[in-house]
Amino acid sequence: MLPRKDLFDIPEGVIYLDGNSLGAMPKAAQARASQVITQEWGKELIKAWNTADWMALPQKVGDRIAGLIGAPAGSVATGDTLSIKVYQAVAAALRMRPDRRVILSDNGNFPTDLYMAQGLIDTIDKGYELRTPAPEDVLAAISDDVAVVMLTQVDYRTGRMHDMQAITKAAQAAGAVMIWDLAHSAGAVPVDMTGSNAEFAVGCTYKYLNGGPGSPAFIYARPDIVNQIEPALAGWLGHDAPFAMELGYRPAMSTERLRVGTPPIVQLSLLDAALDAWEGVDMAELRAASIELSELFIKEVESRCPQLKLASPCDPETRGSQVSFAFDHGYAAMQALIDRGVIGDFRAPDIMRFGFTPLYLDKDDIIAAAEVIADVIGNDLWDDPKYQTKSRVT
Amino acid sequence: MLPRKDLFDIPEGVIYLDGNSLGAMPKAAQARASQVITQEWGKELIKAWNTADWMALPQKVGDRIAGLIGAPAGSVATGDTLSIKVYQAVAAALRMRPDRRVILSDNGNFPTDLYMAQGLIDTIDKGYELRTPAPEDVLAAISDDVAVVMLTQVDYRTGRMHDMQAITKAAQAAGAVMIWDLAHSAGAVPVDMTGSNAEFAVGCTYKYLNGGPGSPAFIYARPDIVNQIEPALAGWLGHDAPFAMELGYRPAMSTERLRVGTPPIVQLSLLDAALDAWEGVDMAELRAASIELSELFIKEVESRCPQLKLASPCDPETRGSQVSFAFDHGYAAMQALIDRGVIGDFRAPDIMRFGFTPLYLDKDDIIAAAEVIADVIGNDLWDDPKYQTKSRVT
Repeated sequence: MLPRKDLFDIPEGVIYLDGNSLGAMPKAAQARASQVITQEWGKELIKAWNTADWMALPQKVGDRIAGLIGAPAGSVATGDTLSIKVYQAVAAALRMRPDRRVILSDNGNFPTDLYMAQGLIDTIDKGYELRTPAPEDVLAAISDDVAVVMLTQVDYRTGRMHDMQAITKAAQAAGAVMIWDLAHSAGAVPVDMTGSNAEFAVGCTYKYLNGGPGSPAFIYARPDIVNQIEPALAGWLGHDAPFAMELGYRPAMSTERLRVGTPPIVQLSLLDAALDAWEGVDMAELRAASIELSELFIKEVESRCPQLKLASPCDPETRGSQVSFAFDHGYAAMQALIDRGVIGDFRAPDIMRFGFTPLYLDKDDIIAAAEVIADVIGNDLWDDPKYQTKSRVT
Repeated sequence: MLPRKDLFDIPEGVIYLDGNSLGAMPKAAQARASQVITQEWGKELIKAWNTADWMALPQKVGDRIAGLIGAPAGSVATGDTLSIKVYQAVAAALRMRPDRRVILSDNGNFPTDLYMAQGLIDTIDKGYELRTPAPEDVLAAISDDVAVVMLTQVDYRTGRMHDMQAITKAAQAAGAVMIWDLAHSAGAVPVDMTGSNAEFAVGCTYKYLNGGPGSPAFIYARPDIVNQIEPALAGWLGHDAPFAMELGYRPAMSTERLRVGTPPIVQLSLLDAALDAWEGVDMAELRAASIELSELFIKEVESRCPQLKLASPCDPETRGSQVSFAFDHGYAAMQALIDRGVIGDFRAPDIMRFGFTPLYLDKDDIIAAAEVIADVIGNDLWDDPKYQTKSRVT
């Protein structure tokens, strides 16, 4: 049953609509960190790699994430950051299509995905091209020179969703490899990696999965292609026998070959603890709750604030678990909201972004948030000098 | 003054000689983790990127590490794993020498450094070659087709040290770019990055720096070349304006361009807390203490255990802060030692490895350890079936 507010510690007076940027803290986090730090590291020291089974933790966490994205156990590797996982996926995909020279993405993709792809092809320096049409033009842009289609399923600014099934099918029909970035999907919408047939997916865990600031990323590879992958980031923990200390790299015969270096045990443990809150959650129920919250939010805000222009799709079926409004004074307005306990965020140039996390939000929260928004917008409370100074992160 | 045992929590009955693999837990770790998790993440949520200055943490920690390796503030970026940092350095160095095709390392290097370099050149696929002569033949192998010399200063198995000044000078005289891996150097021996004139250094922080399991890595770039580096791993947090969300990558005009994705805030905070133990430590004093401990250890062990053959250099000036002994039954013997509270580790095929961390070890520890070693070896206590089964990490 949703929500599961009792599993989270939300500060008094806060309505947190930014779980799409940094998920809220599960109550279990602190105890797990303390266990890892004082008992495992502190008491077991180096032995904890075995006695606390740190070595198996990346795979254990990967299996739990797999369960949330419609993927089989053993198909998800964890570690590093999403940027690194994008690089691994694109590099592997390009090697699977040696005769093609185009990476197709879209200009709504999160910038780091584009940067990482560009950094890779500049490094390879063999005439690769990164194409970024508008999101709605992607399907038409899939041509038979495309090696890789790399898209983020849910747009970080607007919440618009790509049709994973249709685009994957078209990409593969054209002979391209498909990579999905699930940053705003994992834990937000039902994902069926197996059903999609896509070769790769990547994602982060500090948003809807509540792993904490900078928690590790993940990468999925379709089981039938795993052993063909030639890892660009050929780290020792992706080796078939890391502790044999062989001079030559031999990739593990599993998704483990997409591991790189020593795993961040404390953050992986926090993520593992956070995933407890997902035990038994039915993703269809989660999606229904998410849509109910976002539809209610749009109705309540639009009826009170004609100044705000919906920047997300109207149709909830094509929208992730967030709603954005465009507003010329969006930056200042978001600061004013945050000051009053309604925490969303701002994305340049004018997007006020609100995320819906049915694990710890209910309808009362949404109505209360809409009232504060109405107050801030209707009474121009954002028009105070203290809300105009930009901080680095919003 | 050394040691600073009061800053660390070493379990009763343990003599910890494996700080070269995973440093001991500073007492400050738990309180800092609790602060970051319950106060910053829990109470401030997304705002903590500003209010707790998470955005500045990677650079703050980088500056503190810089101080320990003879590098100026602003020259060290932190994050990711050492494997990733090796990849960044090698990729950047190869682009600085576009007409050369050889990476020179040695066959004593830690395997992941070799794997990452190989993965990179296989990805670029333009006829690059990774050469790995024996460590003692490296100087002679520096020829004018070498683009990059990439070495680990202190050998992970034996503690043998390369001459950083001499090799860097020879590499640069031949027109090559120099990369030093400081995994077993940072916090272990005095390092003078500025004085070495090397272009790059990389390292990890969970060994002598005590950052905790999987704490983030670091990369140094010589300040005069930073703005020529074309990052292969062009992540958004290395962008000049990450939150402008530009479609094209523009690297930061500083070492920040070697940052990649979202930093692991909890582990960075643990590392930051661990670095407090290094405040005011004089590296010359540390080195003197380290040599005193290792010389005493060799003397005490050799006098008691003729069965053990010293696998480290006799001359402490050419040895890092560890001592290794070769022993045919080394694996079982190490298990027997660990069972008796003397914790070192084993590296295939026959190396018993002991690290010396003057922050939390004194001469009494060394003598006590030698007595336990004498008991285990002299009385064949390792010859018990329970010590023969290999675990994954030792």
